[in-house]
Amino acid sequence: MITSTGNPKVKHMIQLGKKARERKKEGVFLVEGLKMFREAPRERLVQTFVSESFLAEPEHAALLEGIRWEAVKDSVFAQMSDTLTPQGILSVVRRQERKAEDLFEGQKPLLLVLEDLQDPGNVGTIFRTAEGAGVSGIIMTRNCVDIYHPKTVRATMGSIYRVPFLCVEELSPLITLLKEKGIVTYAAHLKGQETYDREDYSRGTAFFIGNEGNGLSEWLSGQADRLIRIPMEGQLESLNASVAAAILMYEAARQRRTRI
Amino acid sequence: MITSTGNPKVKHMIQLGKKARERKKEGVFLVEGLKMFREAPRERLVQTFVSESFLAEPEHAALLEGIRWEAVKDSVFAQMSDTLTPQGILSVVRRQERKAEDLFEGQKPLLLVLEDLQDPGNVGTIFRTAEGAGVSGIIMTRNCVDIYHPKTVRATMGSIYRVPFLCVEELSPLITLLKEKGIVTYAAHLKGQETYDREDYSRGTAFFIGNEGNGLSEWLSGQADRLIRIPMEGQLESLNASVAAAILMYEAARQRRTRI
Repeated sequence: MITSTGNPKVKHMIQLGKKARERKKEGVFLVEGLKMFREAPRERLVQTFVSESFLAEPEHAALLEGIRWEAVKDSVFAQMSDTLTPQGILSVVRRQERKAEDLFEGQKPLLLVLEDLQDPGNVGTIFRTAEGAGVSGIIMTRNCVDIYHPKTVRATMGSIYRVPFLCVEELSPLITLLKEKGIVTYAAHLKGQETYDREDYSRGTAFFIGNEGNGLSEWLSGQADRLIRIPMEGQLESLNASVAAAILMYEAARQRRTRI
Repeated sequence: MITSTGNPKVKHMIQLGKKARERKKEGVFLVEGLKMFREAPRERLVQTFVSESFLAEPEHAALLEGIRWEAVKDSVFAQMSDTLTPQGILSVVRRQERKAEDLFEGQKPLLLVLEDLQDPGNVGTIFRTAEGAGVSGIIMTRNCVDIYHPKTVRATMGSIYRVPFLCVEELSPLITLLKEKGIVTYAAHLKGQETYDREDYSRGTAFFIGNEGNGLSEWLSGQADRLIRIPMEGQLESLNASVAAAILMYEAARQRRTRI
């Protein structure tokens, strides 16, 4: 049992929780709580810490079978945890980033390109919705919020393990690849000429989603085959980015279910 | 110029910011920032406080014409503010709650019933999306998060001024009223028999949206004419409540645009 916050393993975990750079260097991220632990692919679990109270629950023993774990005093666990009321289980998980090609598998990929999204809750929610809508992959620009930030990870509700994604330094090569593959690209834009539900998403489709405050850059809008618009009544200036993405993804999913 | 946090007006504003009960007693809520100030209906503005730095900007003077305002030292304003980087303008706005009848105006109302939603961001986002989708009104149970909480108000992005809504102590009388008016009620439910996009929302429609963790209560699901389901691929257990609400509202809006 680890009983001191001075323990090197504890210090290391606190560093991993706080510093994106450390997580990146080691190629890992942290997940907290039972749900995130249960859904983590076993082969990617690097290390798991559990609190004293967590261990005291008899039904928890079975969960830990066959994996590497270490017990930590409750007060020390609280220091390692990112939440106010920790569930008592915290794991280090190996990252699994894909190559662009992995995201284009299948007959008619459905892709999202997120440009400079800043809110961890939005990005996490987009991952969650993407899994539900059957999205093939998500591409994020390097100025997006860190997908491995504990808040983003939590908001994905486990979809981070299952939705293929990739962070790119430059979008240009990716845009070229999309065009080569015959994927039709749609920019969600306030000035879009076409209402989003008048388009046909049954072919390979990629939606470009812009930053919360500024929308899509002119450059990226210019790269899209079509500018589409989600109609808004009232005096609203825009929809929340994760809501706009959800409406588009589920319209594509609806069309694909209907037009078999 | 108010220069001390000991000033009774400042103390009062801090109370209003912190205590839901105080806001309720006075029938007001607080709004912060330029956007929320600009969009506030003038006749509902009770009082406005601006910081010294806000006043120093020449273009701000015109904004304050014809309204009651008071200047506050920056350091004092920071104490009154709910945000980390205050924009320097904070107003007290009179509430405007509706009667149930107000929400049913028009030929084919589109309504939302929110049962015990707990997350201010979700409720705020639902208001914002509702305005965009042309929703006629939102009904909230008394166990929903306070719609007048500063975080909820902010997340509405101004829609709180424009989307008619009502908080009810009991849902039963409202359900009776919905049935009397011939409004078809749909419960968004993981066990729904019908896929949401196979229903016809061109008549008067109400969607029941459940709590983030537990979904709809059995009682409220039982009251609905139809249980509908948003299909989910992958291993997802549920969608975020504001995303589920958005998909339903925009499907209704899509049908109403298409089936004229």
